[in-house]
Amino acid sequence: MKNIFTILALMVASVTASAQQALWSGSRIVSPEINPDNTVTFRLHAPKAVKVQVTGDFLPSQGWVPGYADLTEKDGIWEYTTYPLAPELYSYSFIVDGFVTRDPSNVYMIRDVASVMNVFIIGGGRADLYKVNDVPHGTVSKVWYHSPTLGTDRRMTVYTPAGYEKNRKQKYPVFYLLHGAGGDEEAWMDLGRTSQILDNLIAQGKAEPMIVVMTNGNAGEVAAPGQCPEGYERIPGMQQRGMMEGSFELHFPDVVKYIEDNYRVYKDKKHRAIAGLSMGGYHSLHISKYYPDMFDYVGLFSAAARFHENSECPVYQNEKSQIDTQFAKKPALYWIAIGNTDFLYDENVKLRQYLDEKEYTYEYMESDEGHIWKNWRIYLTEFVPKLFK
Amino acid sequence: MKNIFTILALMVASVTASAQQALWSGSRIVSPEINPDNTVTFRLHAPKAVKVQVTGDFLPSQGWVPGYADLTEKDGIWEYTTYPLAPELYSYSFIVDGFVTRDPSNVYMIRDVASVMNVFIIGGGRADLYKVNDVPHGTVSKVWYHSPTLGTDRRMTVYTPAGYEKNRKQKYPVFYLLHGAGGDEEAWMDLGRTSQILDNLIAQGKAEPMIVVMTNGNAGEVAAPGQCPEGYERIPGMQQRGMMEGSFELHFPDVVKYIEDNYRVYKDKKHRAIAGLSMGGYHSLHISKYYPDMFDYVGLFSAAARFHENSECPVYQNEKSQIDTQFAKKPALYWIAIGNTDFLYDENVKLRQYLDEKEYTYEYMESDEGHIWKNWRIYLTEFVPKLFK
Repeated sequence: MKNIFTILALMVASVTASAQQALWSGSRIVSPEINPDNTVTFRLHAPKAVKVQVTGDFLPSQGWVPGYADLTEKDGIWEYTTYPLAPELYSYSFIVDGFVTRDPSNVYMIRDVASVMNVFIIGGGRADLYKVNDVPHGTVSKVWYHSPTLGTDRRMTVYTPAGYEKNRKQKYPVFYLLHGAGGDEEAWMDLGRTSQILDNLIAQGKAEPMIVVMTNGNAGEVAAPGQCPEGYERIPGMQQRGMMEGSFELHFPDVVKYIEDNYRVYKDKKHRAIAGLSMGGYHSLHISKYYPDMFDYVGLFSAAARFHENSECPVYQNEKSQIDTQFAKKPALYWIAIGNTDFLYDENVKLRQYLDEKEYTYEYMESDEGHIWKNWRIYLTEFVPKLFK
Repeated sequence: MKNIFTILALMVASVTASAQQALWSGSRIVSPEINPDNTVTFRLHAPKAVKVQVTGDFLPSQGWVPGYADLTEKDGIWEYTTYPLAPELYSYSFIVDGFVTRDPSNVYMIRDVASVMNVFIIGGGRADLYKVNDVPHGTVSKVWYHSPTLGTDRRMTVYTPAGYEKNRKQKYPVFYLLHGAGGDEEAWMDLGRTSQILDNLIAQGKAEPMIVVMTNGNAGEVAAPGQCPEGYERIPGMQQRGMMEGSFELHFPDVVKYIEDNYRVYKDKKHRAIAGLSMGGYHSLHISKYYPDMFDYVGLFSAAARFHENSECPVYQNEKSQIDTQFAKKPALYWIAIGNTDFLYDENVKLRQYLDEKEYTYEYMESDEGHIWKNWRIYLTEFVPKLFK
């Protein structure tokens, strides 16, 4: 075709002028650049800036204060190269004269509650599970289900494994995977890399093909920010409606019923698993004990492993007795994982003490570091291969 | 539950310090704020900045150069309020001392090729179709299909209307909706607001319930940036592999076959529609004429309405004769739309001249302005109600 580039050059009309340079200029700035030795170079064109820094989870932090590094300037281009980084998904921002901003050369961003950060992946080892590899891919759907218990339609994410459409006689087990406070039905997909981890583990033969259901754990919300009727006027935050007062747990059979009515799945306890991080671990703890015949596999990832005593909500009444009933039915797997610096560590010690006293069987994994997505991705890659075997 | 906020406050550990202020501070900056009179106030905390501007498609542009407005500073907070804005989805960026940046108070962003811009919606009129309203919602799925013609698995977006899961005896018509140069299988969902427009038009009884299939029109790519094996190292741009050389058109029956094998759909010409914007209009023109028994409804939105003559690809041979064959079969609807300042206007005049000479039946819509998403959303809202009736 003649003049293809002329035509394409004209088609750029819908793009802002600032982007056109990036689209067409041969001198486009590459940032971040992952070098062969796994150092990473960040670059920013900011000729008027006095000071440019990068902050990210690959820099040593001081407790809650993230680390910073200074970029140096030459001809208006600021640059910083890290030390060699371990395989991982990392996030970062720039700070230009004290103003926190995204990297204009990197379109890849992930929202975590109210923060939007740029991301990159250093491959190798476990982090290769976080990448889109050349393997068969499952389908990821955003589905609205009706909850009679809550009286609303609600949005969730459903992963069906590669082959689900083709293998029409096959039934699948179901893994319900719950987010933490401030999260929603997008969190496990975006920061958790669930579809990539499942695609890769299944392709490697390390996990059974399974359906993964990621709900919205805020019972008073119908969907993630931007996907609900408040639309772009909704400001995300940690304080959502209906987080840990029992109604999410009480409505959970509505989710299971919807999945079992609409997907080719096994409908018994031994083909159902539930796990969650932080608040989602709390939800998994309470749902699995309140409905002791529902889930044979339970995972608590950095869970808020806390009991109430004397709550009016039936989910939270006679909690130890509920646990006793659950373990009398001998779950196939009760799996607890937490980081050794997690602020919820002590709550998990207490839960384990109770299980130990009663001689209930569970598995325990302790990782380094705290209440971070790095750990939740690790826990997911460890937990999924244990399911439905 | 006691101490819920203490717990939640602790759970914020995974969030960066800069976000914590936004999450918890009572003095959070609201930006953009849509005021009752449809003026919009932008705010930015940048105490060290010397000059702060906002640029966006609501400001008068000078040809290709977008408009700018200066913010004024008080106590470190920069602010600008627009004149009253017409209902529309708008995008914008800030410019801080010459550096283009996103609005840190607004997590809502949409990528257009290599640009990521903040967005907001002024409701009312047609723009209410672009919002998530309290109506039944369809399911949006990211699906990988195999193309024997191209020899690869490829990713596409499939919208199934509300009720698809429940009404198991019902079959649906299918609308294939194609993006422009620089786009991918995400473009019509994000900037095009397809699922919102379909949800709303169907709920209002103005459109038939239908399945909408949004492919990746770059035949040499398997998926959108970030969703393919190059992952986050792929830099988006206008120049994609396999854009307008015939192989996308040649592979299109693979898409139709996948949909008809895997969804409850009617499998005849009168239940199939195809439309696209810009390059996608070009694809729709060529696919619908090369396979004249496939589509009864054809939409060209700001199309690159161009012929080749003497190309080696069979899609581009004897093109006028293909058009003659297509119109001899009397398509139910051949719909052409373009803006009166679009750089592709003349190509569309020539196409219409040919159709007029031959006395072929088509519908024509001319809107204001040029090659912009505002027009493509308008065309979608106009075209969809005409389908399958």
